[in-house]
Amino acid sequence: MINILDIKQFLFDKKIDFLIINNTNQFFSEYLPEKQQFIKYLTGFTGSNATLIFGKEKNYFFTDGRYLLQAKYQLIPAISHIINTAETSVFSWLNNNITSTQKIAFIDNLINVSDWQKYNEITNNIILINPLDIDPLQYFWSNHEVSTSFICPDEICGLSSFEKRQQITSGNPNKTFLLTNSENICWLLNLRGKDLLHTPIFFSVAILHPNNKITLFANLENTKHLNLAKNFIELFSFDEIENFFSNFHPIKNQIYTDFSTTNCYLYNILLSNNFSIHKQTCPITKQKSIKNLREIAGAYQSARLDSIALIKFFYWLQYQNKAKNFNTESKAQQHLEFLRRQSPDFFYESFNTISAMASNGAIIHYQCTPNSDLVINSNSLFLIDSGAQYLGNDFYGTTDITRTIAIGKPTPEMILHYTLVLKGHLAIARAKFPKGTKGYQLDSLARQYLWQFGLDYAHSTGHGVGSFLGVHEDGCGIGKNNQNVLLPNMILSNEPGVYLPDRYGIRLENLLLVKEYNQNFLCFETLSLAPFDYNLVDSKMLSYPEKKWLKEYHQNIWQQTSNHLNEAEQNFLLDSVNKFSFDIS
Amino acid sequence: MINILDIKQFLFDKKIDFLIINNTNQFFSEYLPEKQQFIKYLTGFTGSNATLIFGKEKNYFFTDGRYLLQAKYQLIPAISHIINTAETSVFSWLNNNITSTQKIAFIDNLINVSDWQKYNEITNNIILINPLDIDPLQYFWSNHEVSTSFICPDEICGLSSFEKRQQITSGNPNKTFLLTNSENICWLLNLRGKDLLHTPIFFSVAILHPNNKITLFANLENTKHLNLAKNFIELFSFDEIENFFSNFHPIKNQIYTDFSTTNCYLYNILLSNNFSIHKQTCPITKQKSIKNLREIAGAYQSARLDSIALIKFFYWLQYQNKAKNFNTESKAQQHLEFLRRQSPDFFYESFNTISAMASNGAIIHYQCTPNSDLVINSNSLFLIDSGAQYLGNDFYGTTDITRTIAIGKPTPEMILHYTLVLKGHLAIARAKFPKGTKGYQLDSLARQYLWQFGLDYAHSTGHGVGSFLGVHEDGCGIGKNNQNVLLPNMILSNEPGVYLPDRYGIRLENLLLVKEYNQNFLCFETLSLAPFDYNLVDSKMLSYPEKKWLKEYHQNIWQQTSNHLNEAEQNFLLDSVNKFSFDIS
Repeated sequence: MINILDIKQFLFDKKIDFLIINNTNQFFSEYLPEKQQFIKYLTGFTGSNATLIFGKEKNYFFTDGRYLLQAKYQLIPAISHIINTAETSVFSWLNNNITSTQKIAFIDNLINVSDWQKYNEITNNIILINPLDIDPLQYFWSNHEVSTSFICPDEICGLSSFEKRQQITSGNPNKTFLLTNSENICWLLNLRGKDLLHTPIFFSVAILHPNNKITLFANLENTKHLNLAKNFIELFSFDEIENFFSNFHPIKNQIYTDFSTTNCYLYNILLSNNFSIHKQTCPITKQKSIKNLREIAGAYQSARLDSIALIKFFYWLQYQNKAKNFNTESKAQQHLEFLRRQSPDFFYESFNTISAMASNGAIIHYQCTPNSDLVINSNSLFLIDSGAQYLGNDFYGTTDITRTIAIGKPTPEMILHYTLVLKGHLAIARAKFPKGTKGYQLDSLARQYLWQFGLDYAHSTGHGVGSFLGVHEDGCGIGKNNQNVLLPNMILSNEPGVYLPDRYGIRLENLLLVKEYNQNFLCFETLSLAPFDYNLVDSKMLSYPEKKWLKEYHQNIWQQTSNHLNEAEQNFLLDSVNKFSFDIS
Repeated sequence: MINILDIKQFLFDKKIDFLIINNTNQFFSEYLPEKQQFIKYLTGFTGSNATLIFGKEKNYFFTDGRYLLQAKYQLIPAISHIINTAETSVFSWLNNNITSTQKIAFIDNLINVSDWQKYNEITNNIILINPLDIDPLQYFWSNHEVSTSFICPDEICGLSSFEKRQQITSGNPNKTFLLTNSENICWLLNLRGKDLLHTPIFFSVAILHPNNKITLFANLENTKHLNLAKNFIELFSFDEIENFFSNFHPIKNQIYTDFSTTNCYLYNILLSNNFSIHKQTCPITKQKSIKNLREIAGAYQSARLDSIALIKFFYWLQYQNKAKNFNTESKAQQHLEFLRRQSPDFFYESFNTISAMASNGAIIHYQCTPNSDLVINSNSLFLIDSGAQYLGNDFYGTTDITRTIAIGKPTPEMILHYTLVLKGHLAIARAKFPKGTKGYQLDSLARQYLWQFGLDYAHSTGHGVGSFLGVHEDGCGIGKNNQNVLLPNMILSNEPGVYLPDRYGIRLENLLLVKEYNQNFLCFETLSLAPFDYNLVDSKMLSYPEKKWLKEYHQNIWQQTSNHLNEAEQNFLLDSVNKFSFDIS
C-alpha cells in the first residue's frame, strides 16, 4: 500500500512543494466508502472534515472545531501540525506560506472547480495530477462499489421524477445541466442505492436535458436492472463520460454546472470540448430542501419510530444502572440500534452513533473504539447522538437526535451548563421570525445564554436533513455564516451544545420543520420526541414561555408514543412528563 | 430653477429612457448641505436615503423602511411610484424593467465606481452625464460652501495626524491612496469644518502618499488660513484635480481607492491618465471606528453632558404637563436644544431632533413641520431621538440617544410593546460574545422578543458613531447584513424599536462601547445615561439579570449626574432610580 514516504518521493521527483489532498471523493460526498478513505488510512483520523498538505519536510492537517480534539488523539506522529480551519483556512495558509516559485499540486478529481479557481488566484505554479500518480494500484478512490440500486415508488417520494425535472426545466428553459451531486441525482430520479453505510445513495453523474430527459453515468452492474429507459433515463458507465461528451451538442453549446461539486477532471472534459460553461448552484439543492407533503408525513412517522426506540433505550439504561448492571458506551450503542431495528421500517443508521460517557462527550464527533470504550456508571454525563434511515411501505425518512443525561448525581455546574444549552435549544424551537430570515440570523439565539458565561460551541446550531437521504444536507441550516433563507417545509436540526475537554459534553438536538406562523412570519415545529433530563434542569432559570413549551412538549411525547410502550416504560416516561408539568397558571 | 418637465425634455432630446439620480453629492455624504438637496427640492422628500428614476413617462422613487411612511406623506403627486428597497433594489428594478435597447443615464459625480460597474453588467446602453447637463445654472451640487475649517488639537484627537498616517502606510507600504471620504480625511488630518449643519467636516478629496505626505483638494478660501504645509499637507483647490493628476506619477503608477466613495468623474480622471487603479476599502474607515483613549474619554464626557440635559428635559416636560401647560413637538425640541446649549462645550446638534408625539412616532425618521406639529398631551407615547456634537477644551464627542415616554396613562398594549423593545435593548446591552463576532450575529438578539408577537422594525439595530464626526459611521454596527467584526473600543448605537402606523412608535437608544470581557469574549458598556419610563415596563416580563442590569444602570445615572441637577430634578430622577430598584436578593 501507499505510505507517506512514497508520497514524499513523488513530490521530490516531480519538484512539487506542496500536495493538497482533501478528505473526499470525486463526488464530494461528506461520508466516504471505506475504500475511499485515504486520509483515514494514512493518518488514522476518522472524522469527515480534513485536508492534508504534504510538504517536502513537514505535513499539515486541517480540520474544523468539531474534530480538533479528535485529531489530537488520533493523528499519527508523522502528521504533527494540526491547524484549526476556523482560525486559518487551507486557502489562507497557502496564501501566506508559499513563495511565487513554489509549486503546488492537487489530485484532479478531489478538487472542485470553485476551489481550483480560487487557488489559481494566489499562484500560477499549480498543477493537477491524476490519482494514479500517487495510487498506481488503485487502492483508493475507485468507483466500483458493488451495491444494488433500487427504485423508490413515486407514492413514497411524493412527486414523480418527471414532475421534479419539470419544476427545474420550467424555471431554467433551454439549459443543459451537468449534475454532479449524487444525493441530488438520486432524489431527482426517485432512486436510491447502498454505496454508503449510512446514506442510501449510489454515486453518479448526470445530465438533465431541456426536454427533461436524463443521461446517467453510474456503475452499470448496480443500475442496469432498473429498466430506467422507460423513465427517460439513458444509462452509461463512468468510463464512457469522456467519449460521450466528445459527441455531445447541447443547446447553444452551453452547459450549466455547480462548481462546488464538479471536480476538475470533469471540468477539463468540458473545457476540452469547447463548451460554454456556466456556473450555477445546482437547483435541486434548494428544491429537495423544501420537503413535499409525503416527505413531511414521512418525517413525522420517522420521528415517532425514533422516539419509541429512544424512550425504551433510556428506560433500559436507567434500569440496568439501578441493577448495577453497568454497560459500556459500545453496548449502549448496540442496544439502541437493536431497539430501532424492532421497527420493520428501519433501514439502517443515518450515521455512526455517538455514544459518549463523561470526557468522551467533549469530543464533538466522538467514535467509540475498544481503547476508549468507557463504562456508563461514573457520576458524570452521558451523551448519545444517533439517527436512522426509515423506508416503509408508504413513507420514508431520516432522523437525527441527541440527548444528554446525568449518570448519578449531577453537580451544580452540570445543571447550569445543561440549562444554558436547553435555553438555547428552546430559543430556536420557540423562535418566530420574519419571512426572508437567513440561517445566520438565528444562530446567536441558541448561543446567547452560553455566551453570558463565556461559553460557546465550535459547530453550527443546525443543518438541513434529507428525506431518506443524507443526514447532513445543504440547502438550509442555522450557523453563523449560513446564507440560506429559511422557507416553509424545510427540515433542519437544532443542536446547541457545550464541551469541556477532559470533563464532559452536552448536546441537545431535535429536528425542526419550518412552518408558516402568519402572513409575514415563520416558526418551527419540533419533530423529534424524546424527554429531556429533568435532573439537569434548573427550573428557576426558565422563563414562563420556556416552561410552557417544555410542559406541552412532554405531554405530546406521551400522546405520540405511550401506546407503543410497556407499563414499565410508560411509568418511566410519565415520570418525565410529570416533572415537566410546571405550574404555569 | 429646474423642474421635472425640463428633465423630461432633456431625456427626450438625448434619447435617454431612464435617468437615475441618487440623493447624494460628489462626496457621498449621508447628509447634504441645503443647496445640494436636489431631490428634496424636486420632490419634497426630506429624508436621506432616496433614489429617483426619471422615465419618459413615469417617475420612480426608491427608499428604505425607515422612510417609507414619510415618503408617502411628503412626495409630490408627480412622483407617485414609491418602491421599498428592502423588497426591490434600484439595481434589480432596472435589471427587470429595462430592455436591451433602452438607454440609461447617471450623473457622473453622483454615482460611485462600485455601482457603475454593477450597472454595466446589466446593460451596455449606459452613459454618464455632466451635472451641468441638467443643472446648467449650477443651482445644485456646487462645492463652494463658505465655512471656515479649523484644527482639532492633537491632545483632543488622541493621536497626531502623522501618527495616524503612519499606522496606515506601515500596513500598506508603497501604496498611494486616493482618499474620497471627507469624514475619513478630516479624521486623518485632525481637521474639522462646518460644511454641514450637524457633522463638523469640510468636503475634500486627498492623496495619502507612501511617505505620509498629503495632497489635499478642498475649498481654498476655507482652508488656506490653516497653514497646513507645516503638517506635510499640500493644498489645492478642487478645480486643480484634473491638472494635478495629469502631472502625477505615483509609485509603480498604482493608485488605491475605495470604489464605494469614489465618483465616476474622479474615476475617469484616473483612467484617462492610465494609472493602474486598485479597489481597496478605505483603511481609515476601520482605523477611525476603533476609538483611541482620548476619544473614549470624550465619549464618556459627552454622554454625561447629554444625560444632564435629558434629565432636565424630561423633568421640565413632566412639570409643564402637570401644570396643564402643554407643549408642542417643536417647543419640546427647542427646549431640549436650549438645555444642551447650557454646556459651553455644546457645538451643535448631531442631527435634526426627532420629536414625535403619538402617530408621528411611527414615522421612523420623523421631522416636525408646522402642519404636523402635535401637542404633547394626549394619552399616547412621546418619542424623542436627539444628539449633539461636543467640543471642549480637552475633549470632543458625538452623542445619539432616544427615549420614549408615556403621556397620560399607557394602555396594556403600549406597556407590552415597550417592554418587548426594552428586553431587546437589554439583550444587546448585556450581550457577551466571542471575539470575531460580526454585526449580523447580534442583530436578532434585539428582535427576538418582538418576533414572538409577530412584530419587527425596518431599520438596523445599531450604527457606528463618530468622535466629533458623523453620528452615522461605517466601520461597525449591528444589522442583519452588517459584516463588520466587532472590536474593542468601537462605539455604536443600540436602538431597537417598534412602529405602529397611525398609532405610535417606540425606540430606546443608547450608545455602546465595545470592551474586553475576558481573553476570548467581548461585551458592551452602555455610555448613554437617561432613565427608562417605569410606567411602561411590565416587570413581570423581566428576568433576574435584566432587573439587575436596570437597577445598576439607574443607580449609575444618579451617581454620574445628580450633582448637576437642582433639587426638583434630583427628586424626579430619584423617583426612577427607586422604581427600578428591584428586589433581586
